[in-house]
Amino acid sequence: MRYPNKINKTICNNKISHSNRGLSLESDLNITNEYYRDNKIAIVYKKPTPVRCVETECIGKKTIIKKAFYEMPSTTDYNGVYKGYYIDFEAKEVRTKAFSLTNIHEHQLKHLFDVREQGGIAFIIVRFSKIDETYMLDSKVLNNIIKNGEKSISLDYFKKNGCLVKTNYHPRLDYINSINMLYFGGKNEHKKNIE
Amino acid sequence: MRYPNKINKTICNNKISHSNRGLSLESDLNITNEYYRDNKIAIVYKKPTPVRCVETECIGKKTIIKKAFYEMPSTTDYNGVYKGYYIDFEAKEVRTKAFSLTNIHEHQLKHLFDVREQGGIAFIIVRFSKIDETYMLDSKVLNNIIKNGEKSISLDYFKKNGCLVKTNYHPRLDYINSINMLYFGGKNEHKKNIE
Repeated sequence: MRYPNKINKTICNNKISHSNRGLSLESDLNITNEYYRDNKIAIVYKKPTPVRCVETECIGKKTIIKKAFYEMPSTTDYNGVYKGYYIDFEAKEVRTKAFSLTNIHEHQLKHLFDVREQGGIAFIIVRFSKIDETYMLDSKVLNNIIKNGEKSISLDYFKKNGCLVKTNYHPRLDYINSINMLYFGGKNEHKKNIE
Repeated sequence: MRYPNKINKTICNNKISHSNRGLSLESDLNITNEYYRDNKIAIVYKKPTPVRCVETECIGKKTIIKKAFYEMPSTTDYNGVYKGYYIDFEAKEVRTKAFSLTNIHEHQLKHLFDVREQGGIAFIIVRFSKIDETYMLDSKVLNNIIKNGEKSISLDYFKKNGCLVKTNYHPRLDYINSINMLYFGGKNEHKKNIE
């Protein structure tokens, strides 16, 4: 699980935790989402990590949480609206040449498939950090891979069946362009629901 | 600000906090959303309350939050997908006969208007708990009220310009039916974006 902002890499039992391995991708996505919002291109936010509070204290009007735990998120990290369409995705960064499906929780996959079934645009964004390339893959394609019993997805598979997410100055990671490519035949004028 | 589950009513400075005044409405919405998800009608979740962590400790593999604060949410409490459309709303419960606009933060109102502009379905749900009636009001209508300099919205106004959200056994609070009434002329078969 990744932790919210202002928490640095955590060292547990002298082992470096990989919990926030996706921090640079996350930071790129935050900058991108801000750009999309400011320019009225899309409204997408990262959801806060759920926290279960056990003990709180009130000092004046302020509530201080004295004991709490991170909880497993019920859904994916990002969702929002683009031209009336609901978009939903999970973003992961890997240092390997293939993307292991253990990187995404089962209930998050189920959530993506449910969203797709409800007519939403649901996908994953995967950054292969060693070659600094980022790809988008539709959740329907992902579902087929899982149904075939695959445990991981190769970079080649992303290249052939997904869509490269271009890195620019602004927007930093133009995934809306990739949505246009993957779901709307490259056009950015569309008014119908996806199938 | 309302606090997440498992935190009971907080008493600060011997005064009863109204922070979680909306708890029964919130609980009704949670049950409703679960019903909608289970029956593949819509996928809507309440967003977790953002928490800023100041101090954490690792015990084994578990991270314990030792000091943290509730943060102001950037957006509204609920969002999700219904037939491919993005839906977004804030829900409030009041004991008064009119709904004061101070119940919703300015940045939440801005978020609703931005979502509406991006083609999303954005509204507020207000429960008048004394008469146990719940209404939906479109964010465009809400925007006009604010532009006219109004500070509160009467129950009558909700009756005339909003839509009653019916209370049933299942779904507990059928706001999807109200969406069909308010945005799709009462039909539940629609494939075009709203204007």
